[in-house]
Amino acid sequence: MQSCDILIQARWCIPVEPDNCVLDNHGIAISDGRIVAVLPADDARAQFSPGVLVDRPDHVLIPGLINAHTHAAMTLFRGLAEGLPLERWLREGIWPHEQRWVSAEMVRDGTKHAIVEMLRGGVTCFSDQYFFPEVVASAAVDLHMRAMIGTPVMDFPTPWAQNADEYLAKATDLVHDPYADHSLISSCFAPHATDALSEESGQKLRVLADQLDRRVQIHLHETATEIATTVQDHGQRPFERLSELGLVNASLMAVHAVHMTEEELQQFSVTGVSVAHCPRSNLKLASGIAPVQAMLDAGINVALGTDGAASNNVLDMLGEMRTAALLGKVKADDAAAVPASTALRMATLNGAIALGLDDEVGSIEVGKSADLTCVDLNHINSQPVYDPIAQLVYACNREQVSDVWVAGRHQVENGDLTQVDEEEILQRSREWQQRIAAV
Amino acid sequence: MQSCDILIQARWCIPVEPDNCVLDNHGIAISDGRIVAVLPADDARAQFSPGVLVDRPDHVLIPGLINAHTHAAMTLFRGLAEGLPLERWLREGIWPHEQRWVSAEMVRDGTKHAIVEMLRGGVTCFSDQYFFPEVVASAAVDLHMRAMIGTPVMDFPTPWAQNADEYLAKATDLVHDPYADHSLISSCFAPHATDALSEESGQKLRVLADQLDRRVQIHLHETATEIATTVQDHGQRPFERLSELGLVNASLMAVHAVHMTEEELQQFSVTGVSVAHCPRSNLKLASGIAPVQAMLDAGINVALGTDGAASNNVLDMLGEMRTAALLGKVKADDAAAVPASTALRMATLNGAIALGLDDEVGSIEVGKSADLTCVDLNHINSQPVYDPIAQLVYACNREQVSDVWVAGRHQVENGDLTQVDEEEILQRSREWQQRIAAV
Repeated sequence: MQSCDILIQARWCIPVEPDNCVLDNHGIAISDGRIVAVLPADDARAQFSPGVLVDRPDHVLIPGLINAHTHAAMTLFRGLAEGLPLERWLREGIWPHEQRWVSAEMVRDGTKHAIVEMLRGGVTCFSDQYFFPEVVASAAVDLHMRAMIGTPVMDFPTPWAQNADEYLAKATDLVHDPYADHSLISSCFAPHATDALSEESGQKLRVLADQLDRRVQIHLHETATEIATTVQDHGQRPFERLSELGLVNASLMAVHAVHMTEEELQQFSVTGVSVAHCPRSNLKLASGIAPVQAMLDAGINVALGTDGAASNNVLDMLGEMRTAALLGKVKADDAAAVPASTALRMATLNGAIALGLDDEVGSIEVGKSADLTCVDLNHINSQPVYDPIAQLVYACNREQVSDVWVAGRHQVENGDLTQVDEEEILQRSREWQQRIAAV
Repeated sequence: MQSCDILIQARWCIPVEPDNCVLDNHGIAISDGRIVAVLPADDARAQFSPGVLVDRPDHVLIPGLINAHTHAAMTLFRGLAEGLPLERWLREGIWPHEQRWVSAEMVRDGTKHAIVEMLRGGVTCFSDQYFFPEVVASAAVDLHMRAMIGTPVMDFPTPWAQNADEYLAKATDLVHDPYADHSLISSCFAPHATDALSEESGQKLRVLADQLDRRVQIHLHETATEIATTVQDHGQRPFERLSELGLVNASLMAVHAVHMTEEELQQFSVTGVSVAHCPRSNLKLASGIAPVQAMLDAGINVALGTDGAASNNVLDMLGEMRTAALLGKVKADDAAAVPASTALRMATLNGAIALGLDDEVGSIEVGKSADLTCVDLNHINSQPVYDPIAQLVYACNREQVSDVWVAGRHQVENGDLTQVDEEEILQRSREWQQRIAAV
């Protein structure tokens, strides 16, 4: 008998790699936070003597979900600005509130709220893009959540920085200290969009990204207005500007990519750009519907994100998977497009690839970190079960998430948070709401 | 002090009529299954001496949700046929299973499963269209659920009837007996679609509907293929055929109505036809996106339905509201289209109008039946609250439904079913799954 820290026995296990595979009654052995074996449950019990045995007889075990794009602290603005398209939503609904309210304290409280919401929904890793990224990193470390910390770069002042040089200097600080070696924290550059980035700042950004070997993520081709404005101001589409700046390469994650020409899809494919698809946000702001199946057919790596809570209004990756699978079909005019297994892959392994974390997470494979999510199918809305993957994507809600492990730590156990005082976090959010609504 | 059976105190009450109205801290008094008063909570406590006081301090109280279109028994086929467009889904995925498995027993078990799923999700009334409608009615009565029982009419044989005359005769029986006077049960004619209806059967149907004063609901313009086939076979679009049969009037509910010309929208408006919009089913079968805001602008009454569980895959009206609100925006290219309050109205009062039940249900108004749903907003995904209607539509899941009353009977209380043995129903569904999957 071999010892291990944890042995999880699940009715079904969907490892994601290989694609569209369902393992019946399997055991997953974990030691030192890593997956050490994936094997039939009978064999697992015969071979392993676990410190903890977790038996989940009606459940499906999947890789922890990866939210490839969010603005976590915006949970505090959830439902604050309704019924506006992106440009007005930003200028009239969001930016005035951000100017007034964004602070280290607000980012800490909003991000913690978001992390708890995501953990409860089976998310084990998120890629963030917000002000005070050092506070986002600290909140993620506090709550033991894996995070890619995107550091904003802009040419206009916000409560975090006054100009592009200050954004870049602060971003560089974050790369070096104090999270450089933390196993759960990575960082990248996150310019808002090409229309908020001058030529000069873009060039500085590229040099820094190269020097520091950091990835870049940017809102790109989210709306027709964004493209039209950039063409008017610069004579180029945002993608062309980004190309000229030398930022189009395999380190780039283009967030949204709703409005794409055939040629641009080909360029994404050739250069290895990943896409973070945020379907609900794109619907809510009436931005459009991204051509996901066409992207997949072109060989583009498409990840999935919720965007911030102010334009969604939840950080619910199970719901986002469902929306992606449903919307992908109607966009492609093909009921076979974006099948359930592909939506799950977008929400796990493709996310890991887009963030450069696929050696570590994104699938249930020996050697990877034990970032795992367990979903209980024994609910009235997900019975009976013919097809566990279809059931997971089309019929399950986040409330069915029973267990979540991040790097082997059992963060959600039988539906309960093990490490977090949720009521304290909720109370802080209510206090923010009262302050913000009173103005 | 006036006595009443029940007094519900809720943090927020959204009566739906008037539109887009949120009442803070209100009380709803109920006697003999009817709403007798809606007033500020302080006044309610001063005026009423209730048999039962239900205090819901973090909750929003809304009219019970009305699922305007489903095939309830198809819960037993949930996830059975994935990745097919409507016509192949029916011919290859669904009809062979229906020929083999549909029986009074199957319809009873599948419908009970559906009713429990819907009750848990805040639905208090559903409009059904399936074989053995007398069994559907009986299941609804057993579980104290309001239902509009659509009786199928077709020109081809199924396990329920052999030809149109038999369908019509059985439908007529149902109108008269034994549910003619049951307060929860109504019935209507539910021909499948114009392509399954001969000229002769259509005429008989119209005569019977007139004689018996019964409404008609039919799948109409669901897919481009349906329209093209009908044009090829009959030289007319389905709507034109239906017009010629004399079936286009204020008693008609057109289910789906995805592909509509301007002229057809005008005809719907002029004649008073209602629409049952089923957005998730339309996405999943890649049927298309119905022009909901254009319908509303034309003055058409648009209700909301889930369709059956085999093409959705859940009977979740909160989720359907969210999808309708999100999808309506991108279809109209306008972030202000189909606001949250409109989606809620579609799922309540508009449904009642479409079913001819708006004197009885669909809004929280004195004199109407106490069909009510309470949703707990005190969850991590729906805090903080700036806008209770936005929160309900964009952020809440069916698991947040705390209480449901149907005609004043407390069917779901604090998240628990009060009258139903859910495990017994689930067990039967699992047994059906084993039989069906074994073939």
